[in-house]
Amino acid sequence: MEEKRILLSHGSGGTMARDLIDQYVVKHFENPILNLLNDQAVFPTSSSRLAFTTDSYVVDPIFFPGGDIGKLAICGTVNDLAVCGATPQYLSCSFMIEEGFLFSDLEKILLSMKEACKEAGVKIVTGDTKVVNRGSLDKIFINTAGVGSLEEGLSISGNKALVGDKVLITGFLGDHEIAIISKRENLGFVTHVQSDVAPMNGIVKALLQKGLGSRLHAMRDPTRGGLATVLNEIAAQSQIGVIIEEDKIPVREEVKGACEILGFDPLYLANEGKLVIFLDSQKAEEVLSVIKKTRYGSDAQIIGEVIAEPKGKVLMRTGIGGTRIVDMLATEQFPRIC
Amino acid sequence: MEEKRILLSHGSGGTMARDLIDQYVVKHFENPILNLLNDQAVFPTSSSRLAFTTDSYVVDPIFFPGGDIGKLAICGTVNDLAVCGATPQYLSCSFMIEEGFLFSDLEKILLSMKEACKEAGVKIVTGDTKVVNRGSLDKIFINTAGVGSLEEGLSISGNKALVGDKVLITGFLGDHEIAIISKRENLGFVTHVQSDVAPMNGIVKALLQKGLGSRLHAMRDPTRGGLATVLNEIAAQSQIGVIIEEDKIPVREEVKGACEILGFDPLYLANEGKLVIFLDSQKAEEVLSVIKKTRYGSDAQIIGEVIAEPKGKVLMRTGIGGTRIVDMLATEQFPRIC
Repeated sequence: MEEKRILLSHGSGGTMARDLIDQYVVKHFENPILNLLNDQAVFPTSSSRLAFTTDSYVVDPIFFPGGDIGKLAICGTVNDLAVCGATPQYLSCSFMIEEGFLFSDLEKILLSMKEACKEAGVKIVTGDTKVVNRGSLDKIFINTAGVGSLEEGLSISGNKALVGDKVLITGFLGDHEIAIISKRENLGFVTHVQSDVAPMNGIVKALLQKGLGSRLHAMRDPTRGGLATVLNEIAAQSQIGVIIEEDKIPVREEVKGACEILGFDPLYLANEGKLVIFLDSQKAEEVLSVIKKTRYGSDAQIIGEVIAEPKGKVLMRTGIGGTRIVDMLATEQFPRIC
Repeated sequence: MEEKRILLSHGSGGTMARDLIDQYVVKHFENPILNLLNDQAVFPTSSSRLAFTTDSYVVDPIFFPGGDIGKLAICGTVNDLAVCGATPQYLSCSFMIEEGFLFSDLEKILLSMKEACKEAGVKIVTGDTKVVNRGSLDKIFINTAGVGSLEEGLSISGNKALVGDKVLITGFLGDHEIAIISKRENLGFVTHVQSDVAPMNGIVKALLQKGLGSRLHAMRDPTRGGLATVLNEIAAQSQIGVIIEEDKIPVREEVKGACEILGFDPLYLANEGKLVIFLDSQKAEEVLSVIKKTRYGSDAQIIGEVIAEPKGKVLMRTGIGGTRIVDMLATEQFPRIC
């Protein structure tokens, strides 16, 4: 029996499009705001400040060890809200689908998104579905945008890191990118690493509940470009220097091994379930201990600190005692994956 | 001299990606919130209700008579906010670009978006840029999401049309889709119609300023699927019937001519600068006269009214005196374009 596939008509605005929305999208994501099926969602808010972000997900392969494009599309946007201290609340979701895409694959993705929304405590309240001619896009792209509320008194931003701050990473680096590459390039013999894709708002919530929000100065999730890129961005925005200790950076043996074989540097590998935090050194141990008790923070480490000079630069004390500059890459180590 | 093109490295998160963002995107869209270059925007709000919407733009061709994908990406999202009576404020913008895309084309699109933002009075405050392998997408897709504030007392929604309401359209139908098709299929000999792509929030603002907001019951912009689809959607959501007069539906002679040649029905053609409004019949003439004075409303017409039966159906009194059912299309008249 031929499997059911997406047709151009499913994006036409006619009854087939309506059926796709009703029987797939709304069926899985249903909530009172989305169910109204207007061209926009209306939601109440009591915050005086909101955070707003967007990301398009074009990952290939769309299913990979530890996750899929749907889980990524929820967690990535949730994490971009969480890193300013916001509580992620409402998401939009726009599917761009190639004609011929399997309904069974769409359903897997929708279920995975539903699960991720549940864990992160967010609702998809508005959306859009486009179908394009075969060959005009590779399988499926997903855009999500998100809105979150921000409590008073928080001011976490890439330009707020201070000299003396500690730099913390919430766990092992590089799992996501190695998982993607091993699937794409068929490197199952090299590694069985799973993507770390996960919502990070639980960690942020735990810190806010302990009253530690004002001690967090800059926070970012090290996705494309990895830890090295995030540190360089914050060093430039805050006009400070950063020094990290190679020995303290958590990288799994399997990821180290894969990097050696493939010629990659784990500092530049993409992650989808990690936070880099610049924070008040006086509260560093307390923050670390709170994070270590959360679901995704058990391997957190303080990896370095902020120095006055050289401004805008990132240095690393290497395992053998030297110090080297950790630059941003001009291009990339390998085809972009996230 | 070889023209400058987008490379995969421009999407890598490295310095080339940063240059693309700084020298192109932020250069054109710059504002204090976007300039912070965090992974999210933070904005203040004093509204107790917000509207939120998203749309991905995959139009082919990307440049067409009367506009381009960039103008469409701003106006489309502005319009989806305006149709619930919201004041569009902040937009996100995510570019998905094929490796090899010309920088000169990107710049044209950015300028056109800047212009449209200015006219609509909205700011792009957060964004994302992905570059994918050649062949993984056709040229460029753009997603925009938008947030707008909603004043108290408004309740404009697809399920709020009432028996006795008048149905109004703000101008000529079908210009956008005929412009796209004529460019794509090289039908310059058939028509010189320009797309109607335009921000509709000016019309909505004029009505709100006259205190007419509470007289608007349901409002939608007739994009994919056209007027017929919007009327059917609202008839179904509000559980009412709609009857329209064929003679009153504004369609340009040139669009009629193109439809005859191509075998299309103007009722199903996509528009990108029109509103369909269901409103209190007592204020219909006043609303019409306010709309006629706005930049995009001079050809507005009252085209029909809401009836109690048959529920969920749309009828049309034809020019020769008969009455026929105007159904939703199951599929589409031709390849989808907007």
